[in-house]
Amino acid sequence: MTLSLYSDEQYMREALKQARYAFEEEEIPIGAVVVMDRQIIARAYNQTEKLRDVTAHAEMLALTAAANHLGNKYLQECTLYVTVEPCVMCAGATAWSQVKRVVYGTHEPKFGFRRHGNLLHPKSELVTGILADECGALMQDFFARKRR
Amino acid sequence: MTLSLYSDEQYMREALKQARYAFEEEEIPIGAVVVMDRQIIARAYNQTEKLRDVTAHAEMLALTAAANHLGNKYLQECTLYVTVEPCVMCAGATAWSQVKRVVYGTHEPKFGFRRHGNLLHPKSELVTGILADECGALMQDFFARKRR
Repeated sequence: MTLSLYSDEQYMREALKQARYAFEEEEIPIGAVVVMDRQIIARAYNQTEKLRDVTAHAEMLALTAAANHLGNKYLQECTLYVTVEPCVMCAGATAWSQVKRVVYGTHEPKFGFRRHGNLLHPKSELVTGILADECGALMQDFFARKRR
Repeated sequence: MTLSLYSDEQYMREALKQARYAFEEEEIPIGAVVVMDRQIIARAYNQTEKLRDVTAHAEMLALTAAANHLGNKYLQECTLYVTVEPCVMCAGATAWSQVKRVVYGTHEPKFGFRRHGNLLHPKSELVTGILADECGALMQDFFARKRR
């Protein structure tokens, strides 16, 4: 098997690293990166507990960081990688950003946006299931520990 | 006519003041306030241009400011007043915040959340049409000037 440096899997591994930082900080372990021209221009993980802010999801922080980096609120040349299916709020944010692609790992049947239809920008491509098992296992591990 | 100090109309007037600040700064004129125990605990207006950040909607900034004020990310005792029907992103944010009531002024058939169903928290009460004419006129005035 050849491992491309620029594959969706490789970028999702970077999002997973972010998710693990969240895990270590007892945040729901979701991580995200934004990629443009093969470069990661933003990395973030969920910080809703630390910041006491329900809007501090990994995707929101990553989109804001990417826009700051570019000095442009529109991200038409960018791909957002996120370990878990985005929620309604984050899907809406990707729509406003006009991000080119949204790539996520594991499905989130309860809080994911997809049960409400396609809330992404009409021009955004959606790719799902990248490293789904690893992304999902991290979530399951987190909630199993919480229940203990 | 008796004018209550604590009516939805009075709080919406405060949200409208915020919307006018946005207008003056050439931002899409949407304003919001968060009220708890009859007190306004957060005020904000749309700043997507200034901050170059698509997530900087009035509602998002107001919810974050309210959570900071309370030191609690949940706003179950709060009402969000916003001059225009929230978008999908902002509706999703209100759901995470568990805000008690969402009160908006004018409908937004294209970008409002309602065409996607009820995206609010199941326990959130929705009130619409408060000072709708004034809230809508400000938006129309803004876009009419933009087109000139």
